Amino acid sequence: MSHPHPELSLPPALPAGGLRVVALGGLGEVGRNMAVLEHEGRLLVIDCGVLFPEDNQPGVDLILPDFEYIRDRLDDIEAIVLTHGHEDHIGAVPYLLRLRQDIPLVGSQLTLAFVEAKLKEHRITPVTLAVKEGQVEQLGVFECEFVAVNHSIPDALAVAVTTAAGTVLHTGDFKMDQLPLDGRITDLRAFARLGEKGVDLFMVDSTNAEVPGFVTPEVEIGPVLDTVFGQADKRIIVASFSSHVHRVQQVLNAAHNHGRKVAFMGRSMVRNMGIASELGYLTVPEGVLVDQRRAAELPDDQVVYMSTGSQGEPMAALSRMANGDHKVQVGHGDTVILASSLIPGNENAVFRVINGLIRIGARVVHSGNAKVHVSGHASAGELLYCYNILRPRNVMPVHGEVRHLVANGALAVRSGVPADRVILAEDGVVVDLVNGRASVVGAVPCGYVYVDGSSVGTITDAELKDRRVLGEEGFVSVFAVIDTATGKVLAGPQILARGMAEDNAVFQKVLPELTTALENAIEGGASDTYQLQQVMRRTVGRFVATRLRRKPMIVPVVVEA
Amino acid sequence: MSHPHPELSLPPALPAGGLRVVALGGLGEVGRNMAVLEHEGRLLVIDCGVLFPEDNQPGVDLILPDFEYIRDRLDDIEAIVLTHGHEDHIGAVPYLLRLRQDIPLVGSQLTLAFVEAKLKEHRITPVTLAVKEGQVEQLGVFECEFVAVNHSIPDALAVAVTTAAGTVLHTGDFKMDQLPLDGRITDLRAFARLGEKGVDLFMVDSTNAEVPGFVTPEVEIGPVLDTVFGQADKRIIVASFSSHVHRVQQVLNAAHNHGRKVAFMGRSMVRNMGIASELGYLTVPEGVLVDQRRAAELPDDQVVYMSTGSQGEPMAALSRMANGDHKVQVGHGDTVILASSLIPGNENAVFRVINGLIRIGARVVHSGNAKVHVSGHASAGELLYCYNILRPRNVMPVHGEVRHLVANGALAVRSGVPADRVILAEDGVVVDLVNGRASVVGAVPCGYVYVDGSSVGTITDAELKDRRVLGEEGFVSVFAVIDTATGKVLAGPQILARGMAEDNAVFQKVLPELTTALENAIEGGASDTYQLQQVMRRTVGRFVATRLRRKPMIVPVVVEA
Repeated sequence: MSHPHPELSLPPALPAGGLRVVALGGLGEVGRNMAVLEHEGRLLVIDCGVLFPEDNQPGVDLILPDFEYIRDRLDDIEAIVLTHGHEDHIGAVPYLLRLRQDIPLVGSQLTLAFVEAKLKEHRITPVTLAVKEGQVEQLGVFECEFVAVNHSIPDALAVAVTTAAGTVLHTGDFKMDQLPLDGRITDLRAFARLGEKGVDLFMVDSTNAEVPGFVTPEVEIGPVLDTVFGQADKRIIVASFSSHVHRVQQVLNAAHNHGRKVAFMGRSMVRNMGIASELGYLTVPEGVLVDQRRAAELPDDQVVYMSTGSQGEPMAALSRMANGDHKVQVGHGDTVILASSLIPGNENAVFRVINGLIRIGARVVHSGNAKVHVSGHASAGELLYCYNILRPRNVMPVHGEVRHLVANGALAVRSGVPADRVILAEDGVVVDLVNGRASVVGAVPCGYVYVDGSSVGTITDAELKDRRVLGEEGFVSVFAVIDTATGKVLAGPQILARGMAEDNAVFQKVLPELTTALENAIEGGASDTYQLQQVMRRTVGRFVATRLRRKPMIVPVVVEA
Repeated sequence: MSHPHPELSLPPALPAGGLRVVALGGLGEVGRNMAVLEHEGRLLVIDCGVLFPEDNQPGVDLILPDFEYIRDRLDDIEAIVLTHGHEDHIGAVPYLLRLRQDIPLVGSQLTLAFVEAKLKEHRITPVTLAVKEGQVEQLGVFECEFVAVNHSIPDALAVAVTTAAGTVLHTGDFKMDQLPLDGRITDLRAFARLGEKGVDLFMVDSTNAEVPGFVTPEVEIGPVLDTVFGQADKRIIVASFSSHVHRVQQVLNAAHNHGRKVAFMGRSMVRNMGIASELGYLTVPEGVLVDQRRAAELPDDQVVYMSTGSQGEPMAALSRMANGDHKVQVGHGDTVILASSLIPGNENAVFRVINGLIRIGARVVHSGNAKVHVSGHASAGELLYCYNILRPRNVMPVHGEVRHLVANGALAVRSGVPADRVILAEDGVVVDLVNGRASVVGAVPCGYVYVDGSSVGTITDAELKDRRVLGEEGFVSVFAVIDTATGKVLAGPQILARGMAEDNAVFQKVLPELTTALENAIEGGASDTYQLQQVMRRTVGRFVATRLRRKPMIVPVVVEA
């Protein structure tokens, strides 16, 4: 397998008749999935999602794919194909449409409904084309065939893109549940047919490539919920992802079986389930749904709250309930079910919520002690089925950290794909499919684009480093007022520290030294503000390093009066 | 079971003949384990460990038990019994001995050797008493019998403390490996004998109480290492905990079997294995150990590096190797084995290291893809054996978050301990054993004590909140120089922001408004610095909140000239 090469240079021009693939996100991280296909000067975008920040990216709300590569070529984009409605596949669409609003969005009915709801918040009305599995659409030079796949959200699609360069099959996110709630399986007949015709490049979900075996069918969660509901004699609170229509469906069914009413909690849960039931993806048993006010009036043993917050998000309903800071007061004997995965990095937050709930006296059921969650991504066993039925000529693992991409590539090789036909690329790496052969030809710049509040791309990695220093060590501000006429220190120096675990009085000790240093510098000819600030930074820096053994951010300010 | 009650008040005096137990750490968190037993006015401390901080405690190095409860009673302490040599049981000893250096330390040979090495760094030479399993020592009013237990470090001891109030059995950390490498099993014969005589209070490790079944024997890791070593034809790097003597033993054995030499890396690994082999706990096959310089000269297929850093600690050898920032340059085809658990909260850091190593081309074997780690703590199945062989009169689960304590308590109840005899206490809760019955009688203040650099207990939760705000939102400093004689703004206002994802130029917009606000305030009679600072804080705060939609820390400074 060809490993990614960080030292790649800009690619040469795409040979005539070839197809170029550049991922602007999703290769090297789980999230911000986005691939750009190019043929005959035209572009097709597949997915445009967001990535959620880690704890070493403080204050960041979202991370976007880097649009720099296509910023000057927006008019070449034929369409954005959206494989399904998860945030890591659609969340960055508003930011791309801000650059060109009329790029057509192509996706299934539910996917488009979710992205339209999101775009409404950004006050954007998109141009859309709804497609179904089996449908073929010519999007400029790209012939797109849509194939049903099963995932943890309904109505997901893979897309087979055929051009003169050959056929690319992109799975989106998928798994192969053979007993899905809606009967809509990943269409292996279509995969077989595409394989017979020849798949030149297989772009395939890597998320669970390290996990051996097969994902348990979603439907097996139903009986577990049923048992837990049967044991509960007070309130039940279920937390899960707000887009997991089938999980919610099973909660509605269990509630119905046990004579309970369900109230949705959390803005995204209410919105998404409204959309899903309106479009027929969620079947609400007669009379089961109530609003929160009505739920509060019901006896404890007749209520289920279906909530967001399964990842321990501090502002979500579940965290606030665990802190006793929500109008639904969880009490002794209530049952809380976290019907969700535990996304790496969220462990501490989730366990804080679980401990809080247990302290109140609730019973907490979660994936660590009961089978209340199954993954949405194909495990190694399922991926091998795909490789064997498709027999692709070239493979490019997508969606995952390096470890996932490498594990997926190894599966391809074990199924018989020649190692040199398995392309392990990272974000920005340029892969050309020419004469039936895919290869890495270069790379384009592709960084993280941070969204923080209303600013997009303003935060740099240097600024994040500043934040980490501020967060870990605090800061020391040093001021002095210099009389520009006389060159004398008119007022100060004065020192103020925050977040430093030191009494501000400790800095009194360095003030005489600081005054002397400033006066010496002025006498020695230093006059401009910058020079004097450097003198203050050095003097205070030496003091905190040697006397306090700390490395706070030092912010010197010289005010001229 | 009696749940902990945060609203408890100070306890009444301990009735004559009774025994009081107060945990100053370890009940509600995994770490900083410390219990204080009191009888007839005398105190016995069991363990004195540290807790490692989470990501919402930025800049904190360690968290100590809160010594406040015993600060005025240091002279009443008979001894500190140390159950084993892990940091979460011995790490805070130097901080307690700083308060009174001659408190005797009682523990096994290896435990004392580890704590003495630590105390040497703090320039403290302790008073010690080495004990062995089966030994009985009268420590003032406390008769202590030491019982062998098996754990992930050799020479661990449980302690049975008998006074006129009855017998307390404290397990320390333990599991019940029936095939331990050193043949030293948890002494169930002693447990049986103590049970026959009567255990009045059983203080028992809760860490794995949520995990069903039994821990796999440590010895089963050997063949897995052997297989991985057999597949490797380049260098092998193994990372594990630097106190896990038996894990290291198995690495030495595997290396020996495959004709490889082993070099220890990391200060604590070198130090601890030196101690362990000197005392006979580690058996080094003839000629297997080499130093790093010699290892660098050997062919790749004859080397094993045994390293620290299995939790992704950024400064440890393994992280630096993953970043290419270490003299051992990991290369394509090398094998890295993380023979360790993945401690919750460390996932992102560990996966960053794994991804870095895979990107370089290394094969990475870890507990997620091979059986290269087993836990050191008894699972539910083992705990049930203990409850059944001991039949304790009262149970107090220790060592764990609330969820662990509650799960352990539930096991006690299922084994037949009456629910009202299971005491679920948190840090600071006071439990009295009187007339054979344990009960919660109150609570004493017991907070987190943060160590940051050289400061102990200086950082408050308020300061940590400051750090979180600084880290997530940055800060805005606002200065103005006021002429105290005229009451005029002499210089400024001037604004400086850091970590805010905004160009500093944006603040130009608020300066005129700020000047006006200051002048109006002075005209309106505001004169003291505090009032003027509040005016600046309000004006700038309103600006950043409404115009930039941010909530940075705002630091106003008025300099008087």
